[in-house]
Amino acid sequence: MSHPSTDQIQERALAMVAEVFDQHIPFHKLLGLRIDRYDLQGVEVRITMKPELIGNIHQQILHGGVTATVLDVVGGLTAFAGLVASRDDWQEEELKSRLMTLGTIDMRVDYLRPGRGNIFTGTGQVIRSGNKVSVCRMELHNEQGEHIAFGTGTYLTG
Amino acid sequence: MSHPSTDQIQERALAMVAEVFDQHIPFHKLLGLRIDRYDLQGVEVRITMKPELIGNIHQQILHGGVTATVLDVVGGLTAFAGLVASRDDWQEEELKSRLMTLGTIDMRVDYLRPGRGNIFTGTGQVIRSGNKVSVCRMELHNEQGEHIAFGTGTYLTG
Amino acid sequence: MSHPSTDQIQERALAMVAEVFDQHIPFHKLLGLRIDRYDLQGVEVRITMKPELIGNIHQQILHGGVTATVLDVVGGLTAFAGLVASRDDWQEEELKSRLMTLGTIDMRVDYLRPGRGNIFTGTGQVIRSGNKVSVCRMELHNEQGEHIAFGTGTYLTG
Amino acid sequence: MSHPSTDQIQERALAMVAEVFDQHIPFHKLLGLRIDRYDLQGVEVRITMKPELIGNIHQQILHGGVTATVLDVVGGLTAFAGLVASRDDWQEEELKSRLMTLGTIDMRVDYLRPGRGNIFTGTGQVIRSGNKVSVCRMELHNEQGEHIAFGTGTYLTG
Repeated sequence: MSHPSTDQIQERALAMVAEVFDQHIPFHKLLGLRIDRYDLQGVEVRITMKPELIGNIHQQILHGGVTATVLDVVGGLTAFAGLVASRDDWQEEELKSRLMTLGTIDMRVDYLRPGRGNIFTGTGQVIRSGNKVSVCRMELHNEQGEHIAFGTGTYLTG
Repeated sequence: MSHPSTDQIQERALAMVAEVFDQHIPFHKLLGLRIDRYDLQGVEVRITMKPELIGNIHQQILHGGVTATVLDVVGGLTAFAGLVASRDDWQEEELKSRLMTLGTIDMRVDYLRPGRGNIFTGTGQVIRSGNKVSVCRMELHNEQGEHIAFGTGTYLTG
Repeated sequence: MSHPSTDQIQERALAMVAEVFDQHIPFHKLLGLRIDRYDLQGVEVRITMKPELIGNIHQQILHGGVTATVLDVVGGLTAFAGLVASRDDWQEEELKSRLMTLGTIDMRVDYLRPGRGNIFTGTGQVIRSGNKVSVCRMELHNEQGEHIAFGTGTYLTG
Repeated sequence: MSHPSTDQIQERALAMVAEVFDQHIPFHKLLGLRIDRYDLQGVEVRITMKPELIGNIHQQILHGGVTATVLDVVGGLTAFAGLVASRDDWQEEELKSRLMTLGTIDMRVDYLRPGRGNIFTGTGQVIRSGNKVSVCRMELHNEQGEHIAFGTGTYLTG
């Protein structure tokens, strides 16, 4: 009889979280927010422009709240991936319990450009990792590579 | 023949903005975000819990992106009301033009408690007013008066 | 033989910290930063204008770094007092160990007015308290009650 | 008779500002803060550890207020260089007037590691440039390349 290896536990945990965030969070479904990629190397969160996401009818741009939402989701996923990567002796139950308590403590959003475009992609990186708190920086770009917004978020990870 | 007085111009401007934000912003309609009050003394933005706004299925709480959205809307409206109140010689055209360029430069959200409740109300105040930039502090409470989140936002007003 | 009561342990801990911050932190001595009050109800940190603290020779105002320093010290002290107040069964050793690991994770400063004045006082309050992380809001006023700056800081408390 | 070219005006303006910040700001002299480089391509602000800058006597690390000070100075200089670079028809008087009104609106500091080291260098880049407001990101590293802190600041430039 074999037990799952550490790598498998880490990969499974992220795959499970990706599925939940992609398929089972009501607000993500309302917005059409999708998880395109989620592994130990990074996360890509995508949102596709649709009329309901518009915040300024004259300029036809993304509402700032949509930008903040994507950045917050990216930050939380980035912080959790950093936590998962930080140890190689996780038990699945422990990771589930950590995920349940994962939460945003604070977040700063810097709006750089009007949110024009069709497809917006959010990415992030851990800048301070810890067993209790992680800090991440996040970015949102449109499909032309224009940089729409920066985020900086502090997450409770334990 | 009479011209509108300053007070009338100020009141009309805010009433017009309140109507736009309450009725004509697609993302506000998607979320069910409403402007309950908007005058020179303050703003109240309301959002009513519904399943689509949930961010955590186990805890049944508001998605952090909804919180950020309400705080950002409150901050923008608060900054604009402060601008309107700062002069008594506005022309309607000038105010329209200022509204068109109103935008969030940056915002910090502090998440204080899980977003539990049925009705959430956002309020705000100007802490630094200026002809070009205003800084506001915003709060979100639930119907039991529990404080869900703080916001601090810097807005381009001119 | 008697043991110190909880209240005594809490009071002693804050008095000890106040003395260290008032007398034994080299950078506080360089700036002339003083702890005027520190108990479970609040903290008052004072700085007196002197030529070396000036950041703008034309305007003769406090350097923004001095403002940030006072706000950060206030926030750390406020977070620690909140931690001390949160339990009534502290052991002195535990509190010392918590103090050693107390640290600022992130801080936002909002500069509201030029730092004009002779005596500046910083005060704060906890807005999110926790065993691991606390978030505080801080204010700096001059001796005329003018509000110079706001701060918001997230502190590691455990 | 010849007039100075645009390039000369831009270079002169930055050289003049560098000299003021390096030599004539009282608080910079108190801390030993130096401007190592300041041109249209970037800024380097240096601070050398000395006992008076210590914030934690056990750990012998830089006070968080020193970190905030360096980041704020870097941000202001970066924002001003961005403004100078944004137009090629500046008059010297205009630039002087802009410098006089340059000010920090808000700043976020993320403390990543304890401030250990002998020489700390701050660098920055503009992430949102504007005629009225600029937003910059700043970094502080020690002489071993360790990343001590991040900053994000919003500056009034006009």
